[in-house]
Amino acid sequence: MQEFIKVAVDAMGGDNAPDEIVKGAVDAVNTRKDIQVLLVGQEEVVNGQLAQYTYEKEQVVVVPASEVIDTAEPPVMAIRKKKDSSIVVGMNLVKKGEADAFVSAGSSGAVLVGGQLLVGRIKGVERPPLAPLIPTENGVSLLVDCGANVDARASHLVQFAKMGSVYMEHVMGIQNPRVAIVNIGAEEEKGNALVKETFPLLKECDDINFIGSIEAREIPHGGADVIVCEAFVGNVILKLYEGVGATLISKIKGAMLSSLRGKIGALLVKPSLKKVLKSFDASEYGGAPLLGLNGLVVKTHGSSKAKEVTNSIIQCVVFKEQKINEKIKEKIVLRENKEE
Amino acid sequence: MQEFIKVAVDAMGGDNAPDEIVKGAVDAVNTRKDIQVLLVGQEEVVNGQLAQYTYEKEQVVVVPASEVIDTAEPPVMAIRKKKDSSIVVGMNLVKKGEADAFVSAGSSGAVLVGGQLLVGRIKGVERPPLAPLIPTENGVSLLVDCGANVDARASHLVQFAKMGSVYMEHVMGIQNPRVAIVNIGAEEEKGNALVKETFPLLKECDDINFIGSIEAREIPHGGADVIVCEAFVGNVILKLYEGVGATLISKIKGAMLSSLRGKIGALLVKPSLKKVLKSFDASEYGGAPLLGLNGLVVKTHGSSKAKEVTNSIIQCVVFKEQKINEKIKEKIVLRENKEE
Repeated sequence: MQEFIKVAVDAMGGDNAPDEIVKGAVDAVNTRKDIQVLLVGQEEVVNGQLAQYTYEKEQVVVVPASEVIDTAEPPVMAIRKKKDSSIVVGMNLVKKGEADAFVSAGSSGAVLVGGQLLVGRIKGVERPPLAPLIPTENGVSLLVDCGANVDARASHLVQFAKMGSVYMEHVMGIQNPRVAIVNIGAEEEKGNALVKETFPLLKECDDINFIGSIEAREIPHGGADVIVCEAFVGNVILKLYEGVGATLISKIKGAMLSSLRGKIGALLVKPSLKKVLKSFDASEYGGAPLLGLNGLVVKTHGSSKAKEVTNSIIQCVVFKEQKINEKIKEKIVLRENKEE
Repeated sequence: MQEFIKVAVDAMGGDNAPDEIVKGAVDAVNTRKDIQVLLVGQEEVVNGQLAQYTYEKEQVVVVPASEVIDTAEPPVMAIRKKKDSSIVVGMNLVKKGEADAFVSAGSSGAVLVGGQLLVGRIKGVERPPLAPLIPTENGVSLLVDCGANVDARASHLVQFAKMGSVYMEHVMGIQNPRVAIVNIGAEEEKGNALVKETFPLLKECDDINFIGSIEAREIPHGGADVIVCEAFVGNVILKLYEGVGATLISKIKGAMLSSLRGKIGALLVKPSLKKVLKSFDASEYGGAPLLGLNGLVVKTHGSSKAKEVTNSIIQCVVFKEQKINEKIKEKIVLRENKEE
């Protein structure tokens, strides 16, 4: 019998659940024969969706979970109370080793809290960061941490840099990824207290390619592959990216449609604009992994459609195949023990 | 004899000094007859530039300053050593009351340090923030603080909110401006330690229109008129704005020019694109004031052209006419004394 890589998927989480989530799962198993998706959610609902697709039956398993965690619920409480929610059941599959990874488009808070409380950290990892890919001029960069640990310490940021480096090298295939810390100037003496404390520690790491500070202006230009920052700053960067992009595009559309000349031009440039928007959409690459857990948890956008779900599942497969967690352990745990 | 509003201008600062700076100064005096510009810099150089323009002679005075502070110099050292630099001489004019305001496109660090050390704070103001206007979907918002005081405390942020409120109401003419604090979620319990400490203090202020948290995504949509944040975060916001905008526009241009169809369309939509870019360019409104000083210091972009210089000078005039510093004193000093 074939050994599947098993990815649990929250069938009930996100704005487009369950239809787009189930579709994404089916597309994933139809792309790769070596994976099995465990769809976690209300059995009847999920089976109802599955009925419309053709796929290899043994590649999709429905795991019942009667409850759903709402995005408005306080996360810690929700994780503790709703034992039969799709998020808790899915995470427990990873914890028990019945799944290699868990993908959810549901409540960010619940996914972050559940990752820590249920799946648990790799021994030696102080804080597991959320690390989304963000689009740049020529590709993507990993933004780490982007909301998991506000008020982090310098030692946490150093671990973020190492884990991010492993991810970009072995999941995204970028040789010797450039690591930079977000700062308000390029010079080493610039920064707030946290950056000033972290900078020399990163400089000392001989197992990452630390290139120094990066100003926010350089991030969209692709100035580094791994962008290290504290969660508050990372969250601002991620959300401003979306906001500025959306505002500019809507202004451009509005301006074009305000004249006949512009309207005709708009028809002609539409394919080009679409191409740009697509290339500037990080969901093409999958969701954001929580790094440093005993297993893998991937958070996709609340607005995820089938394609992002499929890409996130494939991302989990690469993560597993490339033994990312083993490499993180080597880089963080073994190395730190050796240094002691 | 007419009472001029006097604005000192750093003729030597910025990438386009002295030509664009001098041109901007001349344009300003040709726009308003009630102002006098004191051009601070190397006399021969400035006079050489002035020779090509027509203007009312008594509206422009050249104030000699033999030295120039380079952007690469450590600011504190530069301000202390280069006593005859255009920045030090210009700031001293404000200090001595010989000018109402000082505008510079030179070294940000030197302008920030000089503002504090030479011009000095209004008594009661703890930290003077740098407060640029940033473009939004339908206008502009004030981002305060944007780089002057890293690792600020909650009490500083409360003063930023009050000073920013005065500025937006009386310089930009926005009635009852909406004040929000940058946060990583809309709920009151979200945030890092600083935001959690500041939020209830802002909520208690009955002299500002505090509307709560703002997520970075909502900033470009114009979600608030005064955006309060710590300097590190503000600096990231300002620079990412520029970076994402520039990257998107360059990608759109590149995509359009890659096909014949796109090229023809590009010609037709060019005026629309130009209009959008112009409306998304905050320099139209002038430079960034340092709020809370005994006088006014305005920092314009290093890349300022004549138009931004002119707009910044006019901005100083409105600041003076509207008695902004008196209003800041009322709101901060008198009120805080009353509360004690």
